[in-house]
Amino acid sequence: MSADEATTPGANPSEAKPKPKPLGFDDLGYAKIDTDRRCRTGFPEVVFCQGKPDEYLAGIYERMVRTQGCAFGTRASQHQYDVVRAKVPQARYDEVSRVLWVPHDAPARREGEIAVVCAGTADTPVAQEAAQTAEYFGCRVSRYYDVGVAGLHRLLHCIDDIRRANCVIAVAGMEGALASVVGGLVSVPVIAVPTSVGYGASFGGVAALMSKLNSCANGISVVNIDNGYGAAYLATQINRLAVRGNAQ
Amino acid sequence: MSADEATTPGANPSEAKPKPKPLGFDDLGYAKIDTDRRCRTGFPEVVFCQGKPDEYLAGIYERMVRTQGCAFGTRASQHQYDVVRAKVPQARYDEVSRVLWVPHDAPARREGEIAVVCAGTADTPVAQEAAQTAEYFGCRVSRYYDVGVAGLHRLLHCIDDIRRANCVIAVAGMEGALASVVGGLVSVPVIAVPTSVGYGASFGGVAALMSKLNSCANGISVVNIDNGYGAAYLATQINRLAVRGNAQ
Amino acid sequence: MSADEATTPGANPSEAKPKPKPLGFDDLGYAKIDTDRRCRTGFPEVVFCQGKPDEYLAGIYERMVRTQGCAFGTRASQHQYDVVRAKVPQARYDEVSRVLWVPHDAPARREGEIAVVCAGTADTPVAQEAAQTAEYFGCRVSRYYDVGVAGLHRLLHCIDDIRRANCVIAVAGMEGALASVVGGLVSVPVIAVPTSVGYGASFGGVAALMSKLNSCANGISVVNIDNGYGAAYLATQINRLAVRGNAQ
Amino acid sequence: MSADEATTPGANPSEAKPKPKPLGFDDLGYAKIDTDRRCRTGFPEVVFCQGKPDEYLAGIYERMVRTQGCAFGTRASQHQYDVVRAKVPQARYDEVSRVLWVPHDAPARREGEIAVVCAGTADTPVAQEAAQTAEYFGCRVSRYYDVGVAGLHRLLHCIDDIRRANCVIAVAGMEGALASVVGGLVSVPVIAVPTSVGYGASFGGVAALMSKLNSCANGISVVNIDNGYGAAYLATQINRLAVRGNAQ
Amino acid sequence: MSADEATTPGANPSEAKPKPKPLGFDDLGYAKIDTDRRCRTGFPEVVFCQGKPDEYLAGIYERMVRTQGCAFGTRASQHQYDVVRAKVPQARYDEVSRVLWVPHDAPARREGEIAVVCAGTADTPVAQEAAQTAEYFGCRVSRYYDVGVAGLHRLLHCIDDIRRANCVIAVAGMEGALASVVGGLVSVPVIAVPTSVGYGASFGGVAALMSKLNSCANGISVVNIDNGYGAAYLATQINRLAVRGNAQ
Amino acid sequence: MSADEATTPGANPSEAKPKPKPLGFDDLGYAKIDTDRRCRTGFPEVVFCQGKPDEYLAGIYERMVRTQGCAFGTRASQHQYDVVRAKVPQARYDEVSRVLWVPHDAPARREGEIAVVCAGTADTPVAQEAAQTAEYFGCRVSRYYDVGVAGLHRLLHCIDDIRRANCVIAVAGMEGALASVVGGLVSVPVIAVPTSVGYGASFGGVAALMSKLNSCANGISVVNIDNGYGAAYLATQINRLAVRGNAQ
Amino acid sequence: MSADEATTPGANPSEAKPKPKPLGFDDLGYAKIDTDRRCRTGFPEVVFCQGKPDEYLAGIYERMVRTQGCAFGTRASQHQYDVVRAKVPQARYDEVSRVLWVPHDAPARREGEIAVVCAGTADTPVAQEAAQTAEYFGCRVSRYYDVGVAGLHRLLHCIDDIRRANCVIAVAGMEGALASVVGGLVSVPVIAVPTSVGYGASFGGVAALMSKLNSCANGISVVNIDNGYGAAYLATQINRLAVRGNAQ
Amino acid sequence: MSADEATTPGANPSEAKPKPKPLGFDDLGYAKIDTDRRCRTGFPEVVFCQGKPDEYLAGIYERMVRTQGCAFGTRASQHQYDVVRAKVPQARYDEVSRVLWVPHDAPARREGEIAVVCAGTADTPVAQEAAQTAEYFGCRVSRYYDVGVAGLHRLLHCIDDIRRANCVIAVAGMEGALASVVGGLVSVPVIAVPTSVGYGASFGGVAALMSKLNSCANGISVVNIDNGYGAAYLATQINRLAVRGNAQ
Repeated sequence: MSADEATTPGANPSEAKPKPKPLGFDDLGYAKIDTDRRCRTGFPEVVFCQGKPDEYLAGIYERMVRTQGCAFGTRASQHQYDVVRAKVPQARYDEVSRVLWVPHDAPARREGEIAVVCAGTADTPVAQEAAQTAEYFGCRVSRYYDVGVAGLHRLLHCIDDIRRANCVIAVAGMEGALASVVGGLVSVPVIAVPTSVGYGASFGGVAALMSKLNSCANGISVVNIDNGYGAAYLATQINRLAVRGNAQ
Repeated sequence: MSADEATTPGANPSEAKPKPKPLGFDDLGYAKIDTDRRCRTGFPEVVFCQGKPDEYLAGIYERMVRTQGCAFGTRASQHQYDVVRAKVPQARYDEVSRVLWVPHDAPARREGEIAVVCAGTADTPVAQEAAQTAEYFGCRVSRYYDVGVAGLHRLLHCIDDIRRANCVIAVAGMEGALASVVGGLVSVPVIAVPTSVGYGASFGGVAALMSKLNSCANGISVVNIDNGYGAAYLATQINRLAVRGNAQ
Repeated sequence: MSADEATTPGANPSEAKPKPKPLGFDDLGYAKIDTDRRCRTGFPEVVFCQGKPDEYLAGIYERMVRTQGCAFGTRASQHQYDVVRAKVPQARYDEVSRVLWVPHDAPARREGEIAVVCAGTADTPVAQEAAQTAEYFGCRVSRYYDVGVAGLHRLLHCIDDIRRANCVIAVAGMEGALASVVGGLVSVPVIAVPTSVGYGASFGGVAALMSKLNSCANGISVVNIDNGYGAAYLATQINRLAVRGNAQ
Repeated sequence: MSADEATTPGANPSEAKPKPKPLGFDDLGYAKIDTDRRCRTGFPEVVFCQGKPDEYLAGIYERMVRTQGCAFGTRASQHQYDVVRAKVPQARYDEVSRVLWVPHDAPARREGEIAVVCAGTADTPVAQEAAQTAEYFGCRVSRYYDVGVAGLHRLLHCIDDIRRANCVIAVAGMEGALASVVGGLVSVPVIAVPTSVGYGASFGGVAALMSKLNSCANGISVVNIDNGYGAAYLATQINRLAVRGNAQ
Repeated sequence: MSADEATTPGANPSEAKPKPKPLGFDDLGYAKIDTDRRCRTGFPEVVFCQGKPDEYLAGIYERMVRTQGCAFGTRASQHQYDVVRAKVPQARYDEVSRVLWVPHDAPARREGEIAVVCAGTADTPVAQEAAQTAEYFGCRVSRYYDVGVAGLHRLLHCIDDIRRANCVIAVAGMEGALASVVGGLVSVPVIAVPTSVGYGASFGGVAALMSKLNSCANGISVVNIDNGYGAAYLATQINRLAVRGNAQ
Repeated sequence: MSADEATTPGANPSEAKPKPKPLGFDDLGYAKIDTDRRCRTGFPEVVFCQGKPDEYLAGIYERMVRTQGCAFGTRASQHQYDVVRAKVPQARYDEVSRVLWVPHDAPARREGEIAVVCAGTADTPVAQEAAQTAEYFGCRVSRYYDVGVAGLHRLLHCIDDIRRANCVIAVAGMEGALASVVGGLVSVPVIAVPTSVGYGASFGGVAALMSKLNSCANGISVVNIDNGYGAAYLATQINRLAVRGNAQ
Repeated sequence: MSADEATTPGANPSEAKPKPKPLGFDDLGYAKIDTDRRCRTGFPEVVFCQGKPDEYLAGIYERMVRTQGCAFGTRASQHQYDVVRAKVPQARYDEVSRVLWVPHDAPARREGEIAVVCAGTADTPVAQEAAQTAEYFGCRVSRYYDVGVAGLHRLLHCIDDIRRANCVIAVAGMEGALASVVGGLVSVPVIAVPTSVGYGASFGGVAALMSKLNSCANGISVVNIDNGYGAAYLATQINRLAVRGNAQ
Repeated sequence: MSADEATTPGANPSEAKPKPKPLGFDDLGYAKIDTDRRCRTGFPEVVFCQGKPDEYLAGIYERMVRTQGCAFGTRASQHQYDVVRAKVPQARYDEVSRVLWVPHDAPARREGEIAVVCAGTADTPVAQEAAQTAEYFGCRVSRYYDVGVAGLHRLLHCIDDIRRANCVIAVAGMEGALASVVGGLVSVPVIAVPTSVGYGASFGGVAALMSKLNSCANGISVVNIDNGYGAAYLATQINRLAVRGNAQ
C-alpha cells in the first residue's frame, strides 16, 4: 500500500481509528479482542479459524499463547495448522475434529460430566469438536458414538451410563431422530446438534435441524448445524451450574 | 345458463364434447369415470371428496352404489355427509377419519395383515383414514396408536405383534422419528406417512416429511403429508403380494 | 357406531387392542398416558390442549386432578376452558398465555430463579406461557418484558437483576436480536424462543428462528417457534441442576 | 498423537470406551458393526462409502470379506476403489453406478422379478445403483432405460414386460412424471426415485421429489433423491414377500 | 372525510394530482385506465376483480360497458356479481370459473382453434377461466377435461383432436405431468398452467409449477399458478399469428 | 384474577416488577413507553395497532393525546377505531390505509418533498400508509398512483415531477419492477416497498421483495413487505437531511 | 467388464434388453434415439451435452452427422468439443454460448423473425444459446443486447425494430424486470428466460424466475432458468405458425 | 470465427446491430456504455468485474481511464487485476475488498461523513468495499469494525462518534443484529448490508437478510447480501442531500 491511498480507496481499517486505551477490549484494527471476557463469562476466548486470513490467525494464536499460556480454535484447515505451527511450534492439530490448539502446561482438573452421543460415524467430526471443546473448558466428557436409532440396541446398551451425565450433547445428521429418543430416556438437558451429513433432501443439515426443533420429547434445545463448539459452550455452562451452582 | 352463452363465456364443459361410447371410461363432462380400473388394478374406485361440488359428489356416490353395491370416500366434511345421505340413506360417516362410505351388503373376508402405528393422539385421524381404507380394500388391520418415540417403552411393548404384519404404516407428525425406529426393528416394508400435526417450524408437515425421507433405517418409503389413503393403497398391494403373489 | 362397523370402516382404535396391565403406561385407546413419567423425569405431565377433541380433553383433566391433585395445560382456547370447567369447576384460565390449569391445594415452594425477558408486548403471550409453566414446575421466575433492543436503555436498566438467575429465557419475534444481546451480557445459559410475531418477511417466526440459530453470542440454544412450554421445561432442568446438582 | 492428549483435546473415540462383549454389535470405536443384522432383517450389511476415511473403509471391506465372503458398497469414488483393492485384490468397481463390490464365490440364485425403469440417460447411474443392489440382495432384475414420457411410445412399447415384475423402481429427474404414468399402467407397487439430474429450477432433485410426492396415480411411494440403494432394499422386501410370503 | 384532512393524514389520492388530458390513459385517481391499449395490443381490457373495492369495481364495469359495449373480469366473487349487477343489470356470472361479464350485443366471430386440456375435475375452474377468456378474445376453443396421466387411455383417446389446435393450454395441479405428456405428442406450443389443487407437499401449486418448469418435453412454457387468464391471453396471441400472421 | 394466583400461574407481568422512576421510559407492565424517544430521534411515537388488545390500545391513545396533543397508529381495524373513539372522540380513521389518528390542533408546516409512486390500485393501501405517515412526520408528499411498468407511458408522463422530490417511495407487488425503472430515472434515493399483492408464485410478497433486492438500478434499498410506515420513517429522515442537514 | 458380471453387479444396460426393430426409436441401450421425432414435430434432435459421458457423446454426434448431415448440441464444455472434434473434424464450438455444432452443407433459408433481447452483458451466453438454436431451427433472429431497464433509453431506442418480430425472447437475471417492460410495449408473445446471473438473494436465478412468473404485463410465459434452448424451440413453433399457419 | 458462421450458429452479437450514433449510450455490441449517466445521476460508472470476460474487462478499464481519467470496479479477482494491469499499468488492487481501481490524478475533496460499522472481522471485505466505494464517490468515511452485539461495550464506546455521520452503513452476517441496535441509537438512516458470513442455517446470508428486514428499530433499509457497493451508492446520495440539498 502506498502513500496515495490516503486519498483513494484502500485506507487501512487498522490505521483509521487510533484510540487511547479503550475499556475492556484491545483494538488491533482488524479485530477488537474482548480482553474482559473471561472475567465476565468465566470462559477463555476460542478462535473460529475458518475464513481468517493467515497473517491474522497466526498473530492471534501468538498473542493468546503469550497472554494466557494456551490457545484453542475450531474449523481449522491443515494449511492453517502449518501457518500457526511456523510461529507457535507447540501447536497441535486433530484432522478429524479440525481443532487446532496449544495445550496449557498445567491443565486444570476436569469436573462434572457431559455425555456426547452421536448417530453415525460420519457425524464423528462434529461430535469430536464438541467433546474436545468441552474438555478445553474443563469438563469431564464421556463419548458414545455410532448409536443411531436404526439399531436401537446399541443405544439402549449404554443408556444407564449416559444418565450419569449432567448434560447430553446429541449429534446427528440425516433425520436426526437421536435427540428425541435420548430425550425420552434421560432427565437432564439434551443439546441437539444437527449435522450437515446426508444427501438429497437433507439439504445440508436442514432436515436434521427441523426434526430436532419439532422433537416430541422434552428438555431438548438446538444449536446451529455442525455447531459442536456452541453445544460444548452451553453444556459447560450447565455442567458448572450442576457442580458449583450459580457463582454470580 | 341461457341460450346466448353459446357465443359468450360459460359454455358448459359437460356439453362441449359429446362422445359416443369411449373405451374404458364414462364421460360425464365434469368427470371421466375410469370404468376399466378395477379389472386393470384390482382396486375399486375411491372418491377424494374434498373440494368436490355437492351436486357432483352426490351423483358420484349414487352411481357407484348402483353399479358396484358400495362406495368409499376420504376427506369428507360433515356437510358432505349430509348431502350424500339425502340421496343415499345408507351412507355412514366417521368424524375422526372423515371417511364417508356405503358398506357392501356382503363384505369380502379380510386377508393378510397390515400394522398401522401412530405417534400421538393428534395423528389418529390420518391413521384411521389409512386403517379404514385398507380394510375397505380387504386387508386385516392391527392398530398401535400413541406409541411415539418420546416414551419408547410403549412401542417396545408391542413390537413383537407389529412384526407379524406384512407391511407397516407409520403415521407421525412433528419430527417424525417413529418410522426410523420401527424400520430398524422389523423386516417388512415401512410406509411412512408424515402428518401436518405440529406448530412453528413443523411447516405443516414438511419437517416430518424431510425427516422420513432422510431416515437412516432401511426399507422405508414415504407418501405425501397426511396421505393415509395412499399409504393404505400401497400397503394393500404389498399385503396381496405376500398373500397371493403377483397375479399378473 | 353400530355393530356392522366391525366388518367395515370405523373400527374404533380404543377397542381394537385391549391389553392387560401394560408396564409404565395406561392405555385409553385414544391416548397412552405415561404413568411412569414423573418418577423417570421428575416432571408432572403437561397437556398440549390445541386440537384435542373436547371429550378427550375433559377426560384427561378429570383424571389428572383425581390422581395427582392438579393439572396444567397450554394452548387452550376459551371454549376448551368452558368444556373443562363444566367437569372440573376449580379450573382456571389465563386469556393471554392461554394456560388452563387446576391449582394444587398445597403448592410446593419455588426454588432457584429463572429470568424471562421478552422483546415487545406482542411477545407477552409466549413469555407468560414460559413463565407460568416454569412456576408450575416449581421454579421462582422473574419477568422483564418489553425490553427489545431498539430501545437498549430499557434492557441495560435491568441487566444486573437478570444476571442473578440460573437461566434466562429470551422471547422475541421479528428479527429476534434480543437473545444475542442478552447472551453477550450474562454468563448462564440463554434459551431463545422465537415467536411468530411479525409480518411480511418474518414468515411466521422463521426470521426470528434463523436469527437466533446464527447468534454470534455464546451459550444460546433455541426451541421451536412460540414454544414457551419447551423453554420452561428445559430452564427448569437447568435451574434444578444449579440448586440440587444431578440427582441421578 | 502423543501422551499428553489424555489431558487435552484429541482423546481418541476408539479408545475411550473399551467394552467387553456387547450384545449384537461389534464396537470398533469409529463404528459399531451391527452383527445381528442379517438374522434380524435377512439382509447383509451394505457400505455407504461416500465420506468414509480411507483407512476405515479398507478395514470394513476386509472384515466383511473375511466374515461373510463378499462385500458391497455404494457411492464409492475411483480413489476409494484403489484404496480397497490394495487390501482386497478381488474387489471390483463400476464407474457408472459407483458400486464397489467383492463378488461371492458361490452367489445365490436370483428369485422373483423387479423392473427398473428410468427416464433419461443421465438417470442411468442411479438406476444402475438400484439394479445392482437388488441383484446383490438376490432379486432378478429387468431394466428399461431412457423411456421418459416426452416420447411415450418408448414406454408403451415395453409396458407388458414391466407388468410381469413384482415391484417397479421408477428413476427420473427433472419433472419426474415417469412414476405417475407407470403407476397408472401397472398393478404392483411403484417405488419412485427422484434424481438430482436437471438444472435451474430443478433444485438438485427437489422438483422431481415434489412431483412424485404429489402423484395423481396410486401405489406410489418415494425415497430420497438419488437413493437407488434405498429403493432396491425396499423392492427386495416386496419381491421376497411376493415369492415367499412373510417368513416371520 | 372533513376539511381538516388536507393538513393531516387521509388526503385522497384521487384529488391529489388533477392533470389536464394525459396522453393514452384516463386518470380516475384510484386507477389510470389504459385507453390506448386496444390499439396498441389488439386486446380489450380485462378486469382482475379480486380485492377491488365494491365502488371502484362497479364504476369500472359501468364505464367499460358505456365505452366499449361489453366487459369481462376474472376472479369475481358472488358478492361482486351482486354489486355489479345492481348497476349493470345485463351482467352475467359463472360460479365455477368466477368470470363476471357483460356480453356484447354483436359478438365477433371466433377464429382459429385453441385446445384446453385439464387433468382432474378440481382443475376445472382454472380451465374454464382460460377457455372463456380465450373465447372473449375471439378464439374458437375445444375442451378436453379430466384427462390426467394416471388413466392415460383417456388422453390418448382424444389426442388426434387436440393436434388440430394452434396452441394447447394444459391445466394441472398436483404433480402436473400432463403438460409433458401432451408436449411430447403435439407439434404446437403448450402453455402449462399449474393449479393450486392438491394438499400436503403440493405447497399451493408450487410442486406443479416446478414440475412444469423442468419438463423434459419441448415447446412448453409456464404461467403463474392458477393463471388461466394469462394462458388465454398468450394462446390468443399465438392463435392470431397462426390465423393472420403478424399484423405489425 | 384472585389472590391464589401469586403462588400459581397467571402472576401478572404488570405487577411483578414495580420500579421507582426508571430513566427514559415509563413502565406500564404490558409496555415500556419510550418517553425519551422524540428528543433522541426527533420522531414522535407511532402505534402498531395490529394485535394489540383493546384495553391496551385505548389506554395508549388516551395517554398519547394527553401528553403530546395528537396520536397516530397504523394497521388498525374498524373495530379498533370504534374502541379508541369511545375514549377519544376526536379520533379519525381511513379504511383504505387503515391509519387511526388524532389530529393535532396546530399541525406543523410541512417541509421538503417526498414522492410516493405505486404500481397498481391494489397497492394503494400500502402507498397511503406511507404517504400519510410521512405527512404526520411533517413532510410534503406528492402521490403518483397506478403507474406500473406494464403501461410505461403513464410513468414517463410524470417522471419530471417525481424528480423534484428529495426521496422516492416506490410501492409495488407482483413482480415489483417499478423500483428499478424509477431508480434508473431519478438521482435521489428510492425506497422500495414490496407489497403482498399478487397470487400463486408471488408468495405473499416474496417475489416482489426478491425482485427489489436484486435490482439492477442504483440507489435502491428495501423495507419489509407492506411496510409503508417504515418507508415513510426513512424517507422523512432523508427529507430532513436534505432540508436541514444533520442537526447532530 | 468380465464374464462373471452376469451373476454379480454391473450387468450392462446396453446388453440387457436386445429388442428386434422397435417402432419409432433406435435402442442403443444407453439411449433410445427418437427417430420418429422430426416427422412428428418438425424439429431435428438437439443434444443436451452437459453430463454426457465422452464416449456416448462422440457416438451420438457421429451418428447424427451420418444420418442427417448436421448436428447441434447445447451446454458443451471445451473438453467435450475436443472429444467430438477428434471423431468429427468439421465440428465447431462457441465458447460464449457453449454450443457445439456441425454445420449442414446446404443450410436451409431462414424464415420469419424472432427478437432476442437481453438485459446485461452477463446474460449474453444464455441469449446466444437461444439465438443460435433458433437459427439452427431455421428462424431469422435479430439481437438486442445490454438493454436492461436501469437505463431505459437503450431499450426505447430499438423498440420499433423489436415490434417487427413474431415473437420476443427476453433474457434477464437479477430482478428480471425486462420481460414486463417489453411485454407492455409489444403485441406478440414474450418468452421470458430467467438467468442465474446475480448474487446474494438472487438464489441462482430464482428471484428472476419469480419476478417473471408474477409479471403484471400480458402475453408473457416463462421457461426454466438459463433455458435458452427451450425458449428458442418454443419461439420457433410460434414463428412457424405466424409464417405458415398450423400444418397439421 | 470463420465466414460460414453468418449462416450458422455463432453470429457475433457485436457485429449484428451496427447503429449510427445512438443517443446517450455507446454500443460496443457486448456492452452499451451509459455515457449519459454521470450527468443524469451525478455518479461515475462503476464496473461489476465478477464474471466479465478478460478481454471485455480490460477494454472497459482502458476506455474509462481514457475518457474520465479514472476507473473503479468491485468484485475483481487477482487474475483480473493482472489482466487489467497489463493494459493499464497504474491500476491498483485491494485483496481484502477486491476493489480494482485507477486513481484520479486530481481526486476531488471529500465532503460530509458516512459511518461504516461492521460486526466481525469476517465482514471486513464487504465493509471495505462499501467504504472505498463511498470514498470514490467523494464522501468522507469513518470506519468502526468488529463491534458486533455479542460484546456490546465495543459499540457503545464509539456510538457518539457514529452519531456525527449523515448516514450509517451497518455490515453484518450471521444473525445480523447490529443494524437494529445501531438503528435504536442514532437518528439518521441506517443502511443494512447482510453478509454471507456464517455457516449452517445462515444460508449464505439469508438469515442476516431476514433479520434486517424484520428489524424492530426505525430508519433501517436493506440492500442485497454482500452488496457493499449498493449501500455506498445510496449512502452517497443521502450524504449529498445532507451537504448540498437536492440539486434538481
